[in-house]
Amino acid sequence: MSHNTFGHMFRVTTWGESHGPALGCVIDGCPPGIAFTLADIQTYLDRRKPGQSRFVTQRREADEVKVLSGVLPQEDGVTFITTGTPISMMIENTDQRSKDYGEIARQYRPGHADYTYDVKYGLRDYRGGGRSSARETAARVAAGALARKVLPGVTYRGALTQIGKHKINRDNWNWDEVNNNPFFCPDPEMVPVWEEYLDGIRKAGSSVGAVVEVVAEGVPAGLGAPIYAKLDQDIAAGLMSINAVKGVEIGEGFNSAELTGEENADEMRIGNDGRPRFLSNHAGGILGGISTGEPIVARFAIKPTSSILTPRQSIDQDGKEVELRTKGRHDPCVGIRAVPIGEAMVACTVADHYLRDRGQTGRLD
Amino acid sequence: MSHNTFGHMFRVTTWGESHGPALGCVIDGCPPGIAFTLADIQTYLDRRKPGQSRFVTQRREADEVKVLSGVLPQEDGVTFITTGTPISMMIENTDQRSKDYGEIARQYRPGHADYTYDVKYGLRDYRGGGRSSARETAARVAAGALARKVLPGVTYRGALTQIGKHKINRDNWNWDEVNNNPFFCPDPEMVPVWEEYLDGIRKAGSSVGAVVEVVAEGVPAGLGAPIYAKLDQDIAAGLMSINAVKGVEIGEGFNSAELTGEENADEMRIGNDGRPRFLSNHAGGILGGISTGEPIVARFAIKPTSSILTPRQSIDQDGKEVELRTKGRHDPCVGIRAVPIGEAMVACTVADHYLRDRGQTGRLD
Amino acid sequence: MSHNTFGHMFRVTTWGESHGPALGCVIDGCPPGIAFTLADIQTYLDRRKPGQSRFVTQRREADEVKVLSGVLPQEDGVTFITTGTPISMMIENTDQRSKDYGEIARQYRPGHADYTYDVKYGLRDYRGGGRSSARETAARVAAGALARKVLPGVTYRGALTQIGKHKINRDNWNWDEVNNNPFFCPDPEMVPVWEEYLDGIRKAGSSVGAVVEVVAEGVPAGLGAPIYAKLDQDIAAGLMSINAVKGVEIGEGFNSAELTGEENADEMRIGNDGRPRFLSNHAGGILGGISTGEPIVARFAIKPTSSILTPRQSIDQDGKEVELRTKGRHDPCVGIRAVPIGEAMVACTVADHYLRDRGQTGRLD
Amino acid sequence: MSHNTFGHMFRVTTWGESHGPALGCVIDGCPPGIAFTLADIQTYLDRRKPGQSRFVTQRREADEVKVLSGVLPQEDGVTFITTGTPISMMIENTDQRSKDYGEIARQYRPGHADYTYDVKYGLRDYRGGGRSSARETAARVAAGALARKVLPGVTYRGALTQIGKHKINRDNWNWDEVNNNPFFCPDPEMVPVWEEYLDGIRKAGSSVGAVVEVVAEGVPAGLGAPIYAKLDQDIAAGLMSINAVKGVEIGEGFNSAELTGEENADEMRIGNDGRPRFLSNHAGGILGGISTGEPIVARFAIKPTSSILTPRQSIDQDGKEVELRTKGRHDPCVGIRAVPIGEAMVACTVADHYLRDRGQTGRLD
Repeated sequence: MSHNTFGHMFRVTTWGESHGPALGCVIDGCPPGIAFTLADIQTYLDRRKPGQSRFVTQRREADEVKVLSGVLPQEDGVTFITTGTPISMMIENTDQRSKDYGEIARQYRPGHADYTYDVKYGLRDYRGGGRSSARETAARVAAGALARKVLPGVTYRGALTQIGKHKINRDNWNWDEVNNNPFFCPDPEMVPVWEEYLDGIRKAGSSVGAVVEVVAEGVPAGLGAPIYAKLDQDIAAGLMSINAVKGVEIGEGFNSAELTGEENADEMRIGNDGRPRFLSNHAGGILGGISTGEPIVARFAIKPTSSILTPRQSIDQDGKEVELRTKGRHDPCVGIRAVPIGEAMVACTVADHYLRDRGQTGRLD
Repeated sequence: MSHNTFGHMFRVTTWGESHGPALGCVIDGCPPGIAFTLADIQTYLDRRKPGQSRFVTQRREADEVKVLSGVLPQEDGVTFITTGTPISMMIENTDQRSKDYGEIARQYRPGHADYTYDVKYGLRDYRGGGRSSARETAARVAAGALARKVLPGVTYRGALTQIGKHKINRDNWNWDEVNNNPFFCPDPEMVPVWEEYLDGIRKAGSSVGAVVEVVAEGVPAGLGAPIYAKLDQDIAAGLMSINAVKGVEIGEGFNSAELTGEENADEMRIGNDGRPRFLSNHAGGILGGISTGEPIVARFAIKPTSSILTPRQSIDQDGKEVELRTKGRHDPCVGIRAVPIGEAMVACTVADHYLRDRGQTGRLD
Repeated sequence: MSHNTFGHMFRVTTWGESHGPALGCVIDGCPPGIAFTLADIQTYLDRRKPGQSRFVTQRREADEVKVLSGVLPQEDGVTFITTGTPISMMIENTDQRSKDYGEIARQYRPGHADYTYDVKYGLRDYRGGGRSSARETAARVAAGALARKVLPGVTYRGALTQIGKHKINRDNWNWDEVNNNPFFCPDPEMVPVWEEYLDGIRKAGSSVGAVVEVVAEGVPAGLGAPIYAKLDQDIAAGLMSINAVKGVEIGEGFNSAELTGEENADEMRIGNDGRPRFLSNHAGGILGGISTGEPIVARFAIKPTSSILTPRQSIDQDGKEVELRTKGRHDPCVGIRAVPIGEAMVACTVADHYLRDRGQTGRLD
Repeated sequence: MSHNTFGHMFRVTTWGESHGPALGCVIDGCPPGIAFTLADIQTYLDRRKPGQSRFVTQRREADEVKVLSGVLPQEDGVTFITTGTPISMMIENTDQRSKDYGEIARQYRPGHADYTYDVKYGLRDYRGGGRSSARETAARVAAGALARKVLPGVTYRGALTQIGKHKINRDNWNWDEVNNNPFFCPDPEMVPVWEEYLDGIRKAGSSVGAVVEVVAEGVPAGLGAPIYAKLDQDIAAGLMSINAVKGVEIGEGFNSAELTGEENADEMRIGNDGRPRFLSNHAGGILGGISTGEPIVARFAIKPTSSILTPRQSIDQDGKEVELRTKGRHDPCVGIRAVPIGEAMVACTVADHYLRDRGQTGRLD
């Protein structure tokens, strides 16, 4: 099962390669009656778009989305209303410098999927990594933009919390800062540090890893399901499916290994509004796979970009030993552009679980 | 979608509560012609079984498995041969002290799924946590025992690498030690440290978290699939679905955030046997979602057992504020018994992906 | 994918063979809070049970169902309340005369799945047909009994409309007669005809085919979904999955080939209650894959029982030509016992679609 | 679950409406290494294309397919090689006369899905029926063209066997005739009869139903699976999902109700080639849900086109009673163009089951 679909009720199927004519997705299960404009989607695509600063790949893509089905265009000429039928979205590839990749068409770049695709499929699209390119994630971001509208009142926000060994100071966390710097950094004091550090990495043709945190606020209690559709499990699966992700945490995550039961307990009281409230959120908003009503907090680690200028030892598809360095245009820290992708995956997962409970049309009762 | 099934080709559906008459699983998609005995399964169930040492819950369960379908009993009276039809396995619950839980039937235990189940379903089986009890994992271990036989030549081994702040010394790693102590600890020097530390935790009626590492050796290159059935994604989902797990890593995991591209690259050469080999395994055996042939390395963090003797603030289902302490019989560190469960989830996931590529009967070519 | 599960939201996984210790099912996705007793299920199992008249197999099975999980037993000692977690039901096999089948263990019975199972799996459970036995359908009937409670106010009723060339007179249709004869026949005038005809078939050790009609009344308009989850498609798939079924129709079915657009149009008016109503129901209650609110009408054809006394030419698994006649205890017309099975499949499919629209818990809005 | 995907291993997701900018499909799971040209697909699209004779709708669509992903273009400029990643195909809509439909935008056409879509979704794309238009089937035919290449050596051929009350004489069956007339009729003597009959229907603005038969020859024994993925069940589901289909049969189908066990038995012998062979094929190539190696024979009934010129009573979305007649451009017998669609659904289903058994890459053994 070559599974290019995720979600059960809000199902997203993506397609496309780095250097084909286009990429896109089909969203199946989006409820009817949701209004949106192309700008609603473009906003998020632009956050992920390459070429936005010197810290990300200089590939230039307009990343303009077209909506091909599943909507009724309204008279104002900009609004679409979803009809409940599959929504097909397409983004054309415009800046494909295939020649950049020519000389490594037969070589296996360390850290890339070149070798494993060849072993699995017996052939591969070497142009820009083909299907294994992170360009596929543009389709996820487009889907996520619609997912945000499925369950209104929820905010999905992401931030970069670590580049290399440089971690933000969580006491400085300010969501308003996130869009004020090229790193989605919530800690203004860390911005100049990362700037200098990444400039060094970039000039050396090197790369470095990062950690992203995504927070969903406003998710009602009761979403998720035992046993193999736990909300945290589905979020973990979604985040782990993003290129270069090597670890996922919910709430305290790996830190919970060091805590005692007393420290980790999220005690409960009745709030002034008469509603249950938690006194802490070590759980990251999920207990027994089901949302508690507290913010959902997920983190994921992204490995350093595998494409670097320093020559590395490898082999080619004929079994010959080679040395290779990856020229092309690459991100010194792919973690940066992973922020909107992480948000999209969480938004799609929450929408999916919401529809499992609420149903897709909900018009019968 | 209340999803109690995992896997696509090797599909495991589990059922049962902590205090019902029985629990079990149905394995759908196990290839025909596999020979096994009940002892093959019991071996793994016994590793997970409660009551094996003073460091795990004192609940006494025989955890004897019955095979109800999908097999041809052989003349020797002990061997079964799978027929390719669904294999139903059942484990009867024998030691259910429901009265232990009586007084907290209406209260929400912090860190447990009591509150979220009530919000979601409007009612819950409060006896021992019902479906949210880790007793469900016995069925996973039984399924994993069969999964190990689907792709011969692979070993699935787990170990505990951290309890509280006490991490093993990886230089001391010795797989042979794992079954010589009650902790599945691969570092003999750490055993007495954990013993003393956990005795303190246990006597205080407290609990603590842990980290488990699972390694699968012998998995051929080429298993897994882009984009939403990545092998690491499916392993992460499987591990995250285990009770109390809050984080999952593959290979370098969160540490990869601190590495540069040069440090993280797994270079390749041609080995003396003429086959490709990797000079390191930062990737944890998976690139682009597809196995490389190197050992698959996964780690997961388990939070401290939520049931502790220290009173905690909470509320009950009528919205009344209460103080509660959980008596019952509980694990001071649930992470210990998570080791065989983690192995089972990895084994099931690898079997599942193997069958996606190889097919379920493979008799047609 | 060896798929022993049907349904997406109301998911039923069945397991078990004719001559194993037991058979059963796991229902995953049944909403919480549904009250039922074992008698509610047993009623339907008894309608399908063997040995009820001389016109069905004389195998004697109590077909007593046990509920192993997913419920909270109530204080009255007979009522269960569903909890939203998987419901495991088991029926033990009691009357297994394996010796009956001994001599044909290696021979392929014409019309049976013996040959195809052997080709597919390389081995098979020859005892009573193993998994291909219609005994599996007991589990479906048990699941259907619960499915009936998911969407209250719907009746699911089946009747036999044809045995051999003898078709009922539809003008005589009387639902009250259906349970007054051993054939589920709605036409009292046809009963003696079938009785005499089937006695002849039975005494000759022969068998004959039949047609069953299932009608679901009270299904609200709006259930179903384009394009590959059409309500009629899912009903057709469910019915076609029943042993020995060779054809399925909705509404006019094959007769619609002979009609003109004028004849086949179901015109609409506004009823006295101010609600839309259809003036006819050629569509069988489904348009564009979605229910219209009219009764859903499905029919299916069952081939004659393959087990007959007349010797037939065949081969055995060594490729030797043989003549064989099937002794054992068999139904002269398996179509009779297919009536409650057809009802169950329609009930499960309607419940499944209802939950797709309404969601499984529906507690969030 | 708004399910616009069919298949498990060879998964086809379709999207698009009658009057949107385009329609298409994503094929996920097509094995790597399959060579094809656009002409291979276009051949089948052209058979289904509107405007080919006076007996089908006069809408003019080029139905030219574009392949957007999942392939490596070869140097000859016309050949593509599949890479194992999702294949996105798109067909642009060119001849959309939306004005034709203007006046019935608010009225429910009898026999159409207008009313049910409105009930379900609360709104609908009234332009040409939107998603419920048979234009969606162009995407199926494109997918089917690739499916034919998955399991080489199988032929998938369809024919029209009945229009209204006029059935072909099966003794005249000649596959070579099927493409010699505008009806896909295998009986040359029936062609002039249908021609005259349909001319009358067409001139009267009326319509009539039909029956299609699809035969797949060369399918190896052993495909399919008990219990809910029976090959006949999946074929029935695929055919029933085609617009306007009201009945499906395998082999003897409804006729099997009239047969005795003796008449219906497909006896077996060993052929001159030493291989098992069946002396008849009442089963239609499938026993117990698994292919026998004999030709797979499926039939389906298509109701008369609902759009007719004769005024019919109906209501509009405000609950007002109306009389309406459907002008537009329509097929007097939609059954004709259903022939290539039926072939496509059978081809996709066989490919899907083949991959379940064989796996998608099959490179590991």
